[in-house]
Amino acid sequence: MVWLGLQRLRAGCPLVLNITNYVVMNNTANALLAIGASPVMAHAQEELEDLVAIASSLVLNIGTLSSPWIESMFRAGRAANARGIPIVLDPVGCGASGFRTHTSRSLVEALRPTIIRGNASEIRSLLHATAGTRGVDSQVDTEAVADEARELAATSGCVVSVSGPIDFITDGRSVLRIANGNPIMTRVTGMGCTATALTGAFAGAGLPALDAAAIAMAVMGVTGDIATERAAGPGSFQVHFIDALAQLGEKDLSTRLRLQRN
Amino acid sequence: MVWLGLQRLRAGCPLVLNITNYVVMNNTANALLAIGASPVMAHAQEELEDLVAIASSLVLNIGTLSSPWIESMFRAGRAANARGIPIVLDPVGCGASGFRTHTSRSLVEALRPTIIRGNASEIRSLLHATAGTRGVDSQVDTEAVADEARELAATSGCVVSVSGPIDFITDGRSVLRIANGNPIMTRVTGMGCTATALTGAFAGAGLPALDAAAIAMAVMGVTGDIATERAAGPGSFQVHFIDALAQLGEKDLSTRLRLQRN
Amino acid sequence: MVWLGLQRLRAGCPLVLNITNYVVMNNTANALLAIGASPVMAHAQEELEDLVAIASSLVLNIGTLSSPWIESMFRAGRAANARGIPIVLDPVGCGASGFRTHTSRSLVEALRPTIIRGNASEIRSLLHATAGTRGVDSQVDTEAVADEARELAATSGCVVSVSGPIDFITDGRSVLRIANGNPIMTRVTGMGCTATALTGAFAGAGLPALDAAAIAMAVMGVTGDIATERAAGPGSFQVHFIDALAQLGEKDLSTRLRLQRN
Repeated sequence: MVWLGLQRLRAGCPLVLNITNYVVMNNTANALLAIGASPVMAHAQEELEDLVAIASSLVLNIGTLSSPWIESMFRAGRAANARGIPIVLDPVGCGASGFRTHTSRSLVEALRPTIIRGNASEIRSLLHATAGTRGVDSQVDTEAVADEARELAATSGCVVSVSGPIDFITDGRSVLRIANGNPIMTRVTGMGCTATALTGAFAGAGLPALDAAAIAMAVMGVTGDIATERAAGPGSFQVHFIDALAQLGEKDLSTRLRLQRN
Repeated sequence: MVWLGLQRLRAGCPLVLNITNYVVMNNTANALLAIGASPVMAHAQEELEDLVAIASSLVLNIGTLSSPWIESMFRAGRAANARGIPIVLDPVGCGASGFRTHTSRSLVEALRPTIIRGNASEIRSLLHATAGTRGVDSQVDTEAVADEARELAATSGCVVSVSGPIDFITDGRSVLRIANGNPIMTRVTGMGCTATALTGAFAGAGLPALDAAAIAMAVMGVTGDIATERAAGPGSFQVHFIDALAQLGEKDLSTRLRLQRN
Repeated sequence: MVWLGLQRLRAGCPLVLNITNYVVMNNTANALLAIGASPVMAHAQEELEDLVAIASSLVLNIGTLSSPWIESMFRAGRAANARGIPIVLDPVGCGASGFRTHTSRSLVEALRPTIIRGNASEIRSLLHATAGTRGVDSQVDTEAVADEARELAATSGCVVSVSGPIDFITDGRSVLRIANGNPIMTRVTGMGCTATALTGAFAGAGLPALDAAAIAMAVMGVTGDIATERAAGPGSFQVHFIDALAQLGEKDLSTRLRLQRN
């Protein structure tokens, strides 16, 4: 499934429109190019309809949110819904501030994203509207929020993809787990945002939402494995990660991927 | 010509003021430092006149444009014109949205930049005000827009520099071609923006516009050649590119550069 | 002192809230993760009180300042003062524009940051409200502003940390010098901003202000030494810098650090 999905993405070169945060724009653009997609980063209300019209998918990431950018997210999201292109939402830091929690919940409510991709703290805060996230890094294990991820998926109608040592992806019924997480990935900024961008690329390649979400995390995990073996630390990890992403092949996936379905 | 231009830049250390996009600010600042220039990134209207007053050149790049930033581009551009310092415009994604096309054309009209640097799709859209750019990556060959580049240069009075497998630089009469393009450069975000920033650095070093535009593309091409040989993929390419840019010497240029003049 | 401070930071994993510039957000987030801190980058007024409430320290960096972001800096700064968490200010480009000079002085006046960290040009402009900075890179030697740094510290009540070939840190009475500066660090964008972010991390780890400022510069200097030995240029320097920062050990510090106290 993963290899076929990757071939499909590379053949289609989906255009991924990103309204995302300042910290990771460069990384995620490079990750999208490396995987074989075409990134556009934009946020001006004046051009979002035009860009949605040529985009294969829309990624919304609230990492450095502000009121004008949130308005742009709603506007682009409505245009994407009108055109039937998939939306992937990353509720970065949901729970760390009321503003982030409220914005994340409003975006889910109004836009019903195809896929919500976050860490365990963010998914929990999104469901319960509780505070408790310490900054943007997760304080909870993925498995601890399994029930909450399922509930969020079932009530919202969105596929929910939770990253962690073991990734957890569900549409409320089916569950996929990917056990390729590497600790070094928590020492590099924006790996979660990269996972979200790649999720947008696979969704934009026309794959079903659950598959797109799982394949993106599988690609992240296997690429992370390869980069971890080659890296001397979190600086060289980033370089090897992009190199490995561009070269990712069938054998890498078949020998390394630890995907469980149930 | 190229080696002399590079020596002149390194001796002068021009201060390049950039109103540019969020995605590439870090890369282009590092490329400017590596080549021997001094970058400033700013956008607040309150300080643009002060900064133009100490700058050697002004780079305007609309990659993540928004209304307040466009106002700043006009304001800085008028100040640059009043002081006679060169302006380099990169119409990123011109043609991908009406907003980008309109903004690019208005900037050209109002400011008459010294040099316009873009890819083939952008240059075509800028001349004809047509849509058709798919995102920010070019869908057209450089040579296919040779006539349009010449026409744009002749009618606007700007030097036009079109990047691609073979770069095409013209002032409407003379034409220079640089055939050092490497495919991997299309897999790294911001290489076009880096070309624009370096064009600003050479223009800021006091070189004539056509020379500055051509030397910048020559430096990009030769540095790209060296980095391609050393790189294992688009991640390590970026690292080697900056290393090679900082060390670029006369012999690299004389043995590698494929520049045609006619 | 340095090794104990580093152990304390790693044990505490302070959450550092950054209102900083677009150019360096990615680098400084990665440097904070590599040293063992947890970064948050934010700027929306709506969430700053919430984020200050969970933060260990606040970093204000005016590198790409604009009016709305300055308002956010004041708001976050007042919240930090109310909660008694340390503030570190980096007056990037102070002296290059009246807007930067005025903003820097107003922030010092209103917030009395725990630590002011800048280069020699910036510190001089901050004290005298003079112009004369050429862009964001220093034109003055650290030692030439020793008296001014002491005066600024004494009059403002802030610890002043001046980076350069020899760093100079003072609270107005005591002085520490760190002679580990490497010239290549001036060829990489955002090394000063990284120093500021690390200063925020050590201040957030609960160290006294003078110690926090000196330990951060010691860590920068020793890490820079290691990365310089391994690097082929400013591109690979950045990669090795982050790798070395994540692995920095007691022996590196004891054998390499050139710290003078008087």
